This record gives sequence, C-alpha cells and structure tokens, in this order.
Amino acid sequence: MLRLGIDLGGTNLKAGIADENGRLLFKDSVKTRDKSAKTVLNDSAELCFAVLRKAGIGIEEIEAAGTLVPGSFDPETGLVDFCPALDLAGVPFAKLLGEKLGKKVFIENDANLAALAEYTIGSGKGSKSLVAVTLGTGIGGGIIIDGRICEGFNHAGGEIGHMVISQGGQKCSCGRLGCFEAYASASALKRQTKEMMGLHPNSLMWTEAGSIENVNGATAFMAAGKNDEAAKQVLERYFTHLACGITNVINIFQPEVLCIGGGLSNEGEGLINPLREIIDREDFARHSTKRTKLVLATLGNDAGIIGAALLPGLII
Amino acid sequence: MLRLGIDLGGTNLKAGIADENGRLLFKDSVKTRDKSAKTVLNDSAELCFAVLRKAGIGIEEIEAAGTLVPGSFDPETGLVDFCPALDLAGVPFAKLLGEKLGKKVFIENDANLAALAEYTIGSGKGSKSLVAVTLGTGIGGGIIIDGRICEGFNHAGGEIGHMVISQGGQKCSCGRLGCFEAYASASALKRQTKEMMGLHPNSLMWTEAGSIENVNGATAFMAAGKNDEAAKQVLERYFTHLACGITNVINIFQPEVLCIGGGLSNEGEGLINPLREIIDREDFARHSTKRTKLVLATLGNDAGIIGAALLPGLII
Repeated sequence: MLRLGIDLGGTNLKAGIADENGRLLFKDSVKTRDKSAKTVLNDSAELCFAVLRKAGIGIEEIEAAGTLVPGSFDPETGLVDFCPALDLAGVPFAKLLGEKLGKKVFIENDANLAALAEYTIGSGKGSKSLVAVTLGTGIGGGIIIDGRICEGFNHAGGEIGHMVISQGGQKCSCGRLGCFEAYASASALKRQTKEMMGLHPNSLMWTEAGSIENVNGATAFMAAGKNDEAAKQVLERYFTHLACGITNVINIFQPEVLCIGGGLSNEGEGLINPLREIIDREDFARHSTKRTKLVLATLGNDAGIIGAALLPGLII
Repeated sequence: MLRLGIDLGGTNLKAGIADENGRLLFKDSVKTRDKSAKTVLNDSAELCFAVLRKAGIGIEEIEAAGTLVPGSFDPETGLVDFCPALDLAGVPFAKLLGEKLGKKVFIENDANLAALAEYTIGSGKGSKSLVAVTLGTGIGGGIIIDGRICEGFNHAGGEIGHMVISQGGQKCSCGRLGCFEAYASASALKRQTKEMMGLHPNSLMWTEAGSIENVNGATAFMAAGKNDEAAKQVLERYFTHLACGITNVINIFQPEVLCIGGGLSNEGEGLINPLREIIDREDFARHSTKRTKLVLATLGNDAGIIGAALLPGLII
C-alpha cells in the first residue's frame, strides 16, 4: 500500500508518496504562503492532490497519511500545542487534513520523524536502535528503539538539547543554564564564531563571512580549512562541547547508530572525524567489541516526508 | 507458575520464590563466604534448594529462574565480563547455575533488575515507563519503557551516572571529567560533607559523625536537621547537582515515574522535596499537564530478588 507524507515548514510545504518500506516515489512542494492554519491546511491538502495527479495515483491507492508538525502536539486531544513556525496551536490539524483527504492522517514532530526515516531507510537501516541528533537553531533529538519512537509518556521526551552539560553555564532558551543546545547547536557555533572574530580582527573568518551579519555555521570550518588559528580554536572548543553531549547520549542509550543531521552535517567528515576521536576516548563502552556507529544522516531534506509517510505503519 | 530470583552480592547471597506477578512468597540469604566463582555458584544453588525446602515447594513447580549479577555480562556469550564484587569475570554463571538447578536461568545486572521490580510491583506499578536512579557508591540507572528494559544494543546502556553535567569538572572513575556520578552519588555527598567539615571545625557535622572516618551519606542530613548552616550548604549544593542530572534524565525520557533508590533514599521526603522544587522549575515539560512523578523506590533490599524472579517473564 502507498502512503502520503506531508512536511509542514515555515518556508515550504512538502508532500510525497512512498511505499510501505518508505521508498519515496513522488514528491513536490509549494512555498508557505502564510502561517495561518486555514491556508496551511488548504494548501497542504491541494498539494497532496497535485502530487497524486502528477504521479497518476488515485487516492484509493493511498492507505493513510502522516504529517510532520514543526512543534509539539497533545497525543490525547490531537491538538497542536506549540508551533512557532506556523499558527497551528490549538488546531486538530491531522483530523482536519484527514477530512480533506478522506484518509486517516497521523501526526508527529520533526525530530521523531527524521529519526524514524533514518532508522528505516537511511543511516540506521538494518540497525536495532538509532538516535538522530539534529544540529540547527536548536538541537533536536529523535530516539528509535526496536522500531518504536521513544518519546516519553507525555510525548515530550527526546529533548537531548535540554540536557545540562555545564552547570551554571550559558543561558538556554528553555530557562536552564548550560544546556547542550546552548553550546553545540548551529546557532551556538555561530555565536562562538562571532565572539572569536571580535577578539581576532585579522582572522580569515572575517574574509570568509564578509561581515559579522553573514557569519554562519560554515564560517569557522571554511577559515580553519585555510589554517586560520582562531577558527581552529573555535572548532576545537565546539567539538569538545558537541562530543560531550553526544557521549552522554551514547552512555545512556548505547544505540547501534547515532546519526548527525541538520545544516552542520554538510561539513561531513570534517565534523564527524574530530567528534569520533573524542568519543572513542570517552564512551563508557569504549572497551566493548560492540560500539555505537557515529554517522551522518543520509536523507537530508527528504527525511521529514519519508518519516511522515512511514508513521502510519508504526501505528496501524 | 513460580520463579526463583537470585541476588548475588559481595556481602550476601539472597534467593527468593515469587509468583509470575513478582509477589515474593519466600526468601532467604546467606553470607558470601568468599568471592570465588565456585563458592558463589555452589552456595547460591544450595540456597535455592534450601528456600524451596523451607517453603515446601518442589523444584518442578518452578518455571525458570533469574539471577542478578552486580556487574556486566555479554548477552551473546552469557559470560560475566565485569564484576568487581565477585570473581565471576569470564564465567557463564547463568548456564552453570541452570545446570545445578535443572532450570533455565536468565541473568541481568542490578540496576536493570531493580528498575524492573519497581516498574512491575513497586513505585512504578501501573505506569507506562519508569527510570530508577540508584544513589550509592556510584549512580545506577535502570530504564523500563512499556515493560521492556532499555539497555542498548550492546547491553551497556543506562549509564546515566556517566553523563557529564559539569564539563571539565570533578574527575570520575570512568575517566571523564564532570560526570553526574562524581557530583551526586552517595560517595560524592560524603566527599562534599568531609570537605565542608574541613572548612567548619565547629559544624554539628563533627558531632553527628564522631570522626571524619565515620562520615556517611546521612551526616549532612542529620546536622542540617539541627539547623547547622554548613550542613545546609552541603545539601543545597548537593541537591543542585542531583536535580540537574535528574532533570536531564526527565527531559530525555519523560518517564511516567522516576524513582530514587539506594542508601540515600532513606532520607525520604527530606531528599525528595527539595529535589522536586528544583525539577518543577527546570523540567522542559513543566507546562505540560502530564508530568513525571518523582518518588522514592519502595522495594528496598528485595528489589534485586524480585527483579530477578520477574526476568524470565520478560524473555520466555
């Protein structure tokens, strides 16, 4: 049976058709015209029908659909409850979309669906368990054990970004001091890069970025690649923070696979290799013959649609 | 059907008979005469037969047995691989004990079995998920989700004590700097108590302990109960560390129940209440209507035997 996967974002709405193994057959996207629930609902339903039309697939061939919400929802009422990117708070989005499609629609958050997709057909294919760590504005965590999403009894778990790694340290958006996210997200790296640029007016990071406003997660990597000492220092500290949180996660879960996604994963081996080196020293199971595999996420921007299309199979 | 549960410790060997719901019907124990595998094996088999005799239960009424190992083992080979309290490293203990009893024997570590017992018939009875945190020489973690032990693909997970909460901080036995265990175990509290006593020669902690050698996890609690300022400071800092690690665990798992066991749990509400206050401020799900219940472990020293007796039911 085929399934629809919908990925709601503040920039784009995406939809795709996948088979029951998560293989993506067709996909399409439209710009998010506005954040209102009505527009998002109508546009995503239309997008689904457009994808079906282009693929030459009738709605009767679709078993069910899954939708990604970039926020949280109450699994009992089905209401979206926190969704800064779109005005969906308080809206029973899955139910409403289901009425428009005439199909059962399941809903889940972005971190869990990315993890589900990587586990099923991406970097964790064939493994028993996977933790997906997404390095973006914040740090997202998705945990899959034996094919099931580990999300807490209240559906609010997986917040590995809000694990304190430096008591009394950097203020986090969640109110705590010293969270992993405050040290190791892409935003944190950007902040650390800017701070170091302030101290080193001759650093190549200035040349790479052009201006302080243009600094991004890649700035320090580019300058370090040209042997800039200040950039290398930024990265050395950043890797220490990132490896600290990831080692914590490994010590707690010992997943078969830990995959790293998000914008920063574009750095590839330049990100993974220094991390591996630290984790190899610090992992509690470092003497074990069976060690967690640290890898890059492989599905990129399709992870959301694929995870959403896989979701019904987890529940039906 | 009835099951045998065996709890191997450096001080005592214990055995009990429980029904399939984990209700302990009979139990007994003997001193651990020596640490050798041969003695431990013979004595624990004899103890099992003695318990059966005293209970008037024939071995044919026993479905299977579970044994607790105070260390780790390789689930593939069945060999105990790390067991500082007893000389069982390299020994296929469950297999050998099974041959002596004529029954299938399953093996699991102490933290996981304590968690399984609390989940099934103790502080987590009726819940969907439980994390058991044991405050002793180290910090043990046992994680049960939907009735299953969450122990990692290599059986080395659950090491919440080896989650860094203070990067670059206190040296931990595992080699990392700043682990939760190095700040919030009973041993850490003892160290913190002694350090404060060194700074405050007139503190009531001296009267309570008698001498520096007699300091234990209760010393600061007793002196604080008599309004000793230095002791109150010790506890205030200790609670900050303990709450930090526990909030991390809640943010990651959002278990329905988080129970605290080990010697320090004897402090009861004096331990739980200050912890709850901090967690209520810091839990990422603090605005949710469904919050993790923070409770004391209820099974005390029987948790090991009960968990061991429940183990076959998880696997058979």
